[in-house]
Amino acid sequence: MMGSGVFADVFPLEVALAAKDVQGKVVRDELRAIGYDGALPVGRRPVAAYFEAHIEQGPVLEDARKVIGVVEAVLGLRWYDCVVTGLESHAGATPHDRRKDALQVATRIMQEVVAIAERSAPHGRGTVGFVQVHPNSRNVIPGQVTFSIDLRNVDVERHDRMDRELRAFAARLQSDTGLRIELREVSYNRPVQFEASCVSAVRGAAGKLGYDHMPCTSGPGHDAVFMARVAPTGMIFIPCKDGISHNEIEHAEPEHVTAGANVLLHAVLDKAGVAA
Amino acid sequence: MMGSGVFADVFPLEVALAAKDVQGKVVRDELRAIGYDGALPVGRRPVAAYFEAHIEQGPVLEDARKVIGVVEAVLGLRWYDCVVTGLESHAGATPHDRRKDALQVATRIMQEVVAIAERSAPHGRGTVGFVQVHPNSRNVIPGQVTFSIDLRNVDVERHDRMDRELRAFAARLQSDTGLRIELREVSYNRPVQFEASCVSAVRGAAGKLGYDHMPCTSGPGHDAVFMARVAPTGMIFIPCKDGISHNEIEHAEPEHVTAGANVLLHAVLDKAGVAA
Repeated sequence: MMGSGVFADVFPLEVALAAKDVQGKVVRDELRAIGYDGALPVGRRPVAAYFEAHIEQGPVLEDARKVIGVVEAVLGLRWYDCVVTGLESHAGATPHDRRKDALQVATRIMQEVVAIAERSAPHGRGTVGFVQVHPNSRNVIPGQVTFSIDLRNVDVERHDRMDRELRAFAARLQSDTGLRIELREVSYNRPVQFEASCVSAVRGAAGKLGYDHMPCTSGPGHDAVFMARVAPTGMIFIPCKDGISHNEIEHAEPEHVTAGANVLLHAVLDKAGVAA
Repeated sequence: MMGSGVFADVFPLEVALAAKDVQGKVVRDELRAIGYDGALPVGRRPVAAYFEAHIEQGPVLEDARKVIGVVEAVLGLRWYDCVVTGLESHAGATPHDRRKDALQVATRIMQEVVAIAERSAPHGRGTVGFVQVHPNSRNVIPGQVTFSIDLRNVDVERHDRMDRELRAFAARLQSDTGLRIELREVSYNRPVQFEASCVSAVRGAAGKLGYDHMPCTSGPGHDAVFMARVAPTGMIFIPCKDGISHNEIEHAEPEHVTAGANVLLHAVLDKAGVAA
């Protein structure tokens, strides 16, 4: 979402060009290396409407045996880094009443992240995907655990409540256990409702072309999230096998890809006022 | 414990020489490099008695304000590798009722490891020190989590019961969640009771020299654990600051080190039948 972020002025061009991957490779250098560091200014052009077609990256359409998802909204996202600090000590020598085991405390937060999301069903999501244990030795009670937290919801109010519940739980646990718990928000994207005329252009195209369709909410972020800030925006989903994406076994049926492209074309024509 | 393990025929010389560290360095090559790959055969010499002095690596002596720990036993140790396999999927796109989150299931085992040890107080210990999450990305529900389990007890029966409780919990959780849970024992050392005459030689030396002392159980393994298989064996502990060891802030008071060396000397003299 770097290109759309710069286009929609969510962050400056310099921030995107200076971004590094885990190996230290810089976006600017890599764009130059492949000849994609062009001379035209980014963004600030008028856009009448923006449509994006994508695999769902989730299992809902496949389960419902629908071909087209009419995306009405994208979940808001909050990312946190959480650090629990205890005291590393020897696994054999340290009696349990003397331990400050950072991992044991961290597991309680990891479970609460999911509990918070489940209390906020059906559009609440809570995930811990990244965990780093220090010193990460079989023989040593962990002194520090760093992990990511991802909380999502389609509704701003409910999303804010998830945030408050997480912070309250962490504060209570810190006071109960005496271990330090740091919780830092590192990213926030508001929930996005797509523009009604774009949603209805997608729904109309799917109906006209005779594809089974259903309303959808997107969990992942997309360029459309940023483009929605500068233009009327809509999205089209097609099913993908087992909801898997960003993975070598990602798969979409060719006829579903065709259907998605057809709906995209007819939604654009409709919105442009051109009869197909 | 490589040297004592080969000396006491717990494992063959070849196994020790072929051991590699995480960078791939091999013991045999490194011993040669520093000139320590000697020509004499290892082990098989008669040993009348073996005594070992060590920092406690735990907080018990320091808490009790004692100078000498008379070690009576060493906790038995079981090491396991546990692998929980779910399905990696997108943190935003996957509703909670469709997830197979390997980390959430793993956290329940991690907590049970400690619960098992606490039910086996005061000599039960349970630790998860090493955790590896795959793919370990903020955005992805973990598909697989690998972690270590360390269970210890001073009593063979109780130690075996801890093992049975762990296996039963893992089997129940696998059946409840449908996620695959593999539990593999990778190391087992029986609990060791030191020889009565050696323990009393240590206690007698501490008493004669006027050092405050108390009976102790060792959590960590030591060369004495292997040497106890081939000779009467005893151990002497001295306090260390905050129970910390294998760490840059490890610290023992010089007067405690002196006390430990004195008790070692007098225990050896006693056992050798030499009056000091």
